[in-house]
Amino acid sequence: MQLGMIGLGRMGANMVRRLVKGDHQCVVFDRSAEAVAELVKEKAVGAASLAEFATTLAKPRAVWLMVPAGVVDRSIADLLPHLEPGDILIDGGNSYYVDDIRRARELASRSIHYVDVGTSGGVWGLERGYCMMVGGEPDIVRYLAPIFATLSPGRGDIPRTPGRETAGGTSEQGWLRCGPNGAGHFVKMVHNGIEYGVMAAYAEGMAVLKAANIGTKAAVADAETTPLRDPEHYQYDLDLPDIAEVWRRGSVIASWLLDLSAAALIRDPALSTFAGRVSDSGEGRWTIKAAIDEGVPAHVLSCALYERFSSRGEADFADRLLSAMRYEFGGHIEKPAGS
Amino acid sequence: MQLGMIGLGRMGANMVRRLVKGDHQCVVFDRSAEAVAELVKEKAVGAASLAEFATTLAKPRAVWLMVPAGVVDRSIADLLPHLEPGDILIDGGNSYYVDDIRRARELASRSIHYVDVGTSGGVWGLERGYCMMVGGEPDIVRYLAPIFATLSPGRGDIPRTPGRETAGGTSEQGWLRCGPNGAGHFVKMVHNGIEYGVMAAYAEGMAVLKAANIGTKAAVADAETTPLRDPEHYQYDLDLPDIAEVWRRGSVIASWLLDLSAAALIRDPALSTFAGRVSDSGEGRWTIKAAIDEGVPAHVLSCALYERFSSRGEADFADRLLSAMRYEFGGHIEKPAGS
Amino acid sequence: MQLGMIGLGRMGANMVRRLVKGDHQCVVFDRSAEAVAELVKEKAVGAASLAEFATTLAKPRAVWLMVPAGVVDRSIADLLPHLEPGDILIDGGNSYYVDDIRRARELASRSIHYVDVGTSGGVWGLERGYCMMVGGEPDIVRYLAPIFATLSPGRGDIPRTPGRETAGGTSEQGWLRCGPNGAGHFVKMVHNGIEYGVMAAYAEGMAVLKAANIGTKAAVADAETTPLRDPEHYQYDLDLPDIAEVWRRGSVIASWLLDLSAAALIRDPALSTFAGRVSDSGEGRWTIKAAIDEGVPAHVLSCALYERFSSRGEADFADRLLSAMRYEFGGHIEKPAGS
Amino acid sequence: MQLGMIGLGRMGANMVRRLVKGDHQCVVFDRSAEAVAELVKEKAVGAASLAEFATTLAKPRAVWLMVPAGVVDRSIADLLPHLEPGDILIDGGNSYYVDDIRRARELASRSIHYVDVGTSGGVWGLERGYCMMVGGEPDIVRYLAPIFATLSPGRGDIPRTPGRETAGGTSEQGWLRCGPNGAGHFVKMVHNGIEYGVMAAYAEGMAVLKAANIGTKAAVADAETTPLRDPEHYQYDLDLPDIAEVWRRGSVIASWLLDLSAAALIRDPALSTFAGRVSDSGEGRWTIKAAIDEGVPAHVLSCALYERFSSRGEADFADRLLSAMRYEFGGHIEKPAGS
Repeated sequence: MQLGMIGLGRMGANMVRRLVKGDHQCVVFDRSAEAVAELVKEKAVGAASLAEFATTLAKPRAVWLMVPAGVVDRSIADLLPHLEPGDILIDGGNSYYVDDIRRARELASRSIHYVDVGTSGGVWGLERGYCMMVGGEPDIVRYLAPIFATLSPGRGDIPRTPGRETAGGTSEQGWLRCGPNGAGHFVKMVHNGIEYGVMAAYAEGMAVLKAANIGTKAAVADAETTPLRDPEHYQYDLDLPDIAEVWRRGSVIASWLLDLSAAALIRDPALSTFAGRVSDSGEGRWTIKAAIDEGVPAHVLSCALYERFSSRGEADFADRLLSAMRYEFGGHIEKPAGS
Repeated sequence: MQLGMIGLGRMGANMVRRLVKGDHQCVVFDRSAEAVAELVKEKAVGAASLAEFATTLAKPRAVWLMVPAGVVDRSIADLLPHLEPGDILIDGGNSYYVDDIRRARELASRSIHYVDVGTSGGVWGLERGYCMMVGGEPDIVRYLAPIFATLSPGRGDIPRTPGRETAGGTSEQGWLRCGPNGAGHFVKMVHNGIEYGVMAAYAEGMAVLKAANIGTKAAVADAETTPLRDPEHYQYDLDLPDIAEVWRRGSVIASWLLDLSAAALIRDPALSTFAGRVSDSGEGRWTIKAAIDEGVPAHVLSCALYERFSSRGEADFADRLLSAMRYEFGGHIEKPAGS
Repeated sequence: MQLGMIGLGRMGANMVRRLVKGDHQCVVFDRSAEAVAELVKEKAVGAASLAEFATTLAKPRAVWLMVPAGVVDRSIADLLPHLEPGDILIDGGNSYYVDDIRRARELASRSIHYVDVGTSGGVWGLERGYCMMVGGEPDIVRYLAPIFATLSPGRGDIPRTPGRETAGGTSEQGWLRCGPNGAGHFVKMVHNGIEYGVMAAYAEGMAVLKAANIGTKAAVADAETTPLRDPEHYQYDLDLPDIAEVWRRGSVIASWLLDLSAAALIRDPALSTFAGRVSDSGEGRWTIKAAIDEGVPAHVLSCALYERFSSRGEADFADRLLSAMRYEFGGHIEKPAGS
Repeated sequence: MQLGMIGLGRMGANMVRRLVKGDHQCVVFDRSAEAVAELVKEKAVGAASLAEFATTLAKPRAVWLMVPAGVVDRSIADLLPHLEPGDILIDGGNSYYVDDIRRARELASRSIHYVDVGTSGGVWGLERGYCMMVGGEPDIVRYLAPIFATLSPGRGDIPRTPGRETAGGTSEQGWLRCGPNGAGHFVKMVHNGIEYGVMAAYAEGMAVLKAANIGTKAAVADAETTPLRDPEHYQYDLDLPDIAEVWRRGSVIASWLLDLSAAALIRDPALSTFAGRVSDSGEGRWTIKAAIDEGVPAHVLSCALYERFSSRGEADFADRLLSAMRYEFGGHIEKPAGS
């Protein structure tokens, strides 16, 4: 079928490529004429303006927005004058599901259908397919099914879950209508919240492995520092790339994130090209807010988020207050860095 | 080659089966004559006593212990009179690596070699193979390589990690000598620590999804309870089995634990056969102790452990003290269960 | 000066009492005529309706609302027809500061001044005075200073903070204009967030003390349970009431919450009258949301909140999923309660 | 009575001063002759060697060790040849209670009594008195009661806990025999664990207050960063010294640590003399190990400990692995510091 794509960054462009390869027609627009030209070379239909974009699309139009979460509302406002009742607007970015609920309501008043799609797969999606979590009206989502079917990974050679034989539905293909508007991004939000937690679990564990030789290092003994009681228990120089690799084979913690960790570690076991300033991009935060609204404990997901904050120096003032208190009650002077 | 196996529980028996299928000779012993008889039917060589077990094995003997961590020392003590210098004793259970260090030292004084093997794979190991993390003398581990090669999953159809082409070693086969004695169980310990964290990440996230319909439920408004500000944001009845399934396909959080979650959820979406009393079996605790000795932050792994403690009611006294304090300063009366 | 008080629950009534004792005139209203009558006996001026309440007050009226957070907006709506430009409306309850910002803006359009007051002190405020955190226009807050001065504890016999001699301001009296509208409840919100964290620290520590005799109890040894390695290290039957008491004298962790814990523990060392279902009343949740918006790590405050959720059974589904995963990968059966 | 003191650092010297002022006779020894001379000026009896120290003391000797935890065993070994059956050895430092249990057993075999004293109060103890948690034989502790009575703060003007009137015991004086050997340091250990948690609660809350003006700062909008949704909610420039001060008066979170925070903040609101590298000195770590052995959840106390680790850069490797994973799955490049 035909799909219009606005936003030809890494994600949007690759989605167009996968759709074109799947024999869909893609009409594409981006603020960058260069980005449009690039995809026209790969059989997409380019548009030089939103007006041209809208004219080129058959009605009812199906338009997929793939732009940063912060500019979705502006993009919709720009596009809206060119749309008509019955058209479908799909937000495939990282929107907050609360915005989906609002947008769907606003667009419904103009008889435009809104679909929110949470997309996972990152730079690997072109090759592996995108896992998509969809929110919207059942009929509209069904109408778009050919698009989702092409973008998604499909069943591939992933073994069937026992008990799934008669379950039906699209989840085995790698896409799912999760519910009404917002449900797609809600599920994607939690997906990312989990992602933070899983990543942190590996990172903490790997850090424990890396420090397993701490007993080989000289220690100081003063009132400020506890000497390691049993240095003979921490004499291991462990090979992290090999350990990540062996865990990929038959261990309980085999996962795609472990695959990626193994790849990163074999390339550079010390990870020296990274400074350890870890970004977070919204979904992790929103997951915690949802957990709190729901009254659901989320210890692990919260810690994973806060560790990212801390990695960027955001614990700085709190830490200084701790040092200040220690100075006040015990006269403890901060030890200088490196000691 | 030949291997003696002591302890024919679920794990030990399946290992014997996999070894026999791989054309190794297995001499087996268990306190339960029935367990021995069962494996004799499957081509293992049975022994009615430790003495017979030792006599039957060719020298140098290679003996694999697969017994609960709490009885390893006793098992070694029972076996020791039947062993001779040059023999090899392998502990494949869930020992604390600190015990490995001690045992290796004690056995070395009798010229008996000790090998510690952390084994992951659970009930699936018979079919998938066991991921093994090994600690011990390099020569001895190399001598046992045929055993590890058969027990491990091998390369299978798991894609090669980019950059691994020239790396060599055994990790791609699913087993690895991690270092000297204790290193095997140390790495297995951290593996389980990570396992707890990863499991908790999924569990918390799924719980957030499950409660996404909380806005549909009536709420009370009193000084003790905060009303949900935006009930319209929590109107989703999400299908957890479908969501677990869709995440298996192309999402960033695809993993074996997710596969298992999907299987559990399709069978019983409410998980009503479980009460939620989650056991922990040592490695998670030891991981935290190691992190603390090393001075490595382990927020996520600790929370995952504590959530298990809490699930078994171990936060009870602390919670009562919180209620008591609230009563003291604010006259707050506990709300009864169910409200 | 004169103040109108709406809402004569525990907090509102005691504030009136303290104000009357401080020679202020209080006009009081409550939905319960009984509550009004009670305070009329104690020299307050009663009003039978909002209309009478408004008529009784001199202009510009100063009206203090002391009602549950969930009904503040409705109370304002009811009162508004009776107010005039120049009047002052004070919300002394547990409002979300975000609502203060909105309300102040709405009321400003009618030339009514809004003041938000976060109040700490609970049932003890009548005797000790209330610690008040105030948000609002500087002139208006200054106008109300006599009220705050009476309600607050004053300097009392609390030693002066070194360095405070020339600092000026009202904070030493126990009340403070923190900033523009919302600032009062923002600071109170964080106060409560801290309160949760401090309470949890004591509760966890006390629980560790209580379990210090765990080595005296028989333990089971199976594959599901780690035996305690050193039972001889956990042989202490500690006297919690005495320990709480001794910490009140010269220890680093002396505090009012510790005083209250000591009082609760001496009355009932086992705290058997509490079930351990701990409520949370909004501020703790909002503190975490603010921390997340600000990108400030709040590990401790979040854990303290989640422990309360868990105490009410809200971790139940997550725990069941953990048990389900353990069953899937290891065939682990949940141990029954009490084992 | 008479007491020998070994170790005349800040803590030991001040204890001697307080004892001398309380009309006890103190015989003092330190490796530094200068430290001894200093106290001789203040009416202590100096000793130039351990032999002289032992000779000077009347029998049975009561010797208090006040040395760093790491050198206690060596100090005991040095002293032991000079002691005789019936003598009493008191460890007043920050020993691990597990060492107390061992030492008490060893010394008992020579008929020397061992007493462990956990001491809280820091540099303020000279003036305020020391809160002491004591472990040892009941008779021996009772014999030393005059020493504890002088060192402790006594009842002072701290209000009596309701219900304490008939309770008896010494806890109201600020010292307590908690149980047999090790119990003193066990309780002190948990005291410090709680201390970490309480400090962290204030630090996190203060950090949330400090960042309450984040909405006034320009934000970037890109795919890596979530824009602050409601900058108008974060427009507060809060005065932290004033807020700490106001909370000292009638709030629920009034405490000695808050008093100290107020003092630190009034002196330097930005705490710019501290770098935020927070030490931890053993007890916090041991508290978590005890919690884990006991199976008691200790979320808050653990987080507080890990925040200190992180403040010293110990999360570095884990953070780099997180960035590496993000790069692998999403091509995310780390944002440079300051952005």
